[in-house]
Amino acid sequence: MSKYSDSSVKGARIDHLGIAVESIDAARGLYEALGLRVIHQETVEHEGVRTAMIPVGESRVELLEPLGPETTVGRFLSKRGAGLHHIALHVDDIQAAWAELQGRGVTIVSPAVQTGAGGHLYFFVHPKSAGGVLLEICQDPV
Amino acid sequence: MSKYSDSSVKGARIDHLGIAVESIDAARGLYEALGLRVIHQETVEHEGVRTAMIPVGESRVELLEPLGPETTVGRFLSKRGAGLHHIALHVDDIQAAWAELQGRGVTIVSPAVQTGAGGHLYFFVHPKSAGGVLLEICQDPV
Repeated sequence: MSKYSDSSVKGARIDHLGIAVESIDAARGLYEALGLRVIHQETVEHEGVRTAMIPVGESRVELLEPLGPETTVGRFLSKRGAGLHHIALHVDDIQAAWAELQGRGVTIVSPAVQTGAGGHLYFFVHPKSAGGVLLEICQDPV
Repeated sequence: MSKYSDSSVKGARIDHLGIAVESIDAARGLYEALGLRVIHQETVEHEGVRTAMIPVGESRVELLEPLGPETTVGRFLSKRGAGLHHIALHVDDIQAAWAELQGRGVTIVSPAVQTGAGGHLYFFVHPKSAGGVLLEICQDPV
């Protein structure tokens, strides 16, 4: 554990880093060289993306490979090139986080707290409110 | 802890995320709204940067504000705008990681494993070998 752990708030952790890549097969080797492992791969047709999940401590790296150029990640690659797509922060109370950020005038991309695969909850904060980073706030299924 | 923790390798964790921002004072509010706290601020004159450290679980977010336009982070902001500057992965054996990556032909930016503030060890992998991300590999002081 980090020496800073005690200073952090309960439930807060970096849930995952979403990294847009041209090819999962080409990108995974670096992580495998460091002893990390892809434990799950999944194709999400309706989002136009193939994902590979690599656990790193309490977090994970998720490699995102587009199924075609006219997908969200495909357009990101065309415009920005490979690189970080989003950072996901886990919190214990996503409804409180939503209310707090709304109250402070933070620009939230999602129309409401969303329910994703497996029942986890999430919403996205616009990069202009998050230091240029697309920030996902998420919570485990209740 | 994440449900994926058991699948990860010993010692591996996301040490920190370095995020380049125009202003720490403007950027920190979002994290504070989520209950996170800046526990340390530091000006590193020879790197031309002011930093603010925000613990998040076993990791931390480090906000990086340039001291001027002709600094590493200043040039990054001019070219790319605010956003993720680098991801730092902690490993237990940085010398083994260095040797393994070198052996695989990964492009390493640093000329050797470096010793940083407080005695921690680190080197940087070029974004072209790491899915477009500037990747720091680090280890606690020995």
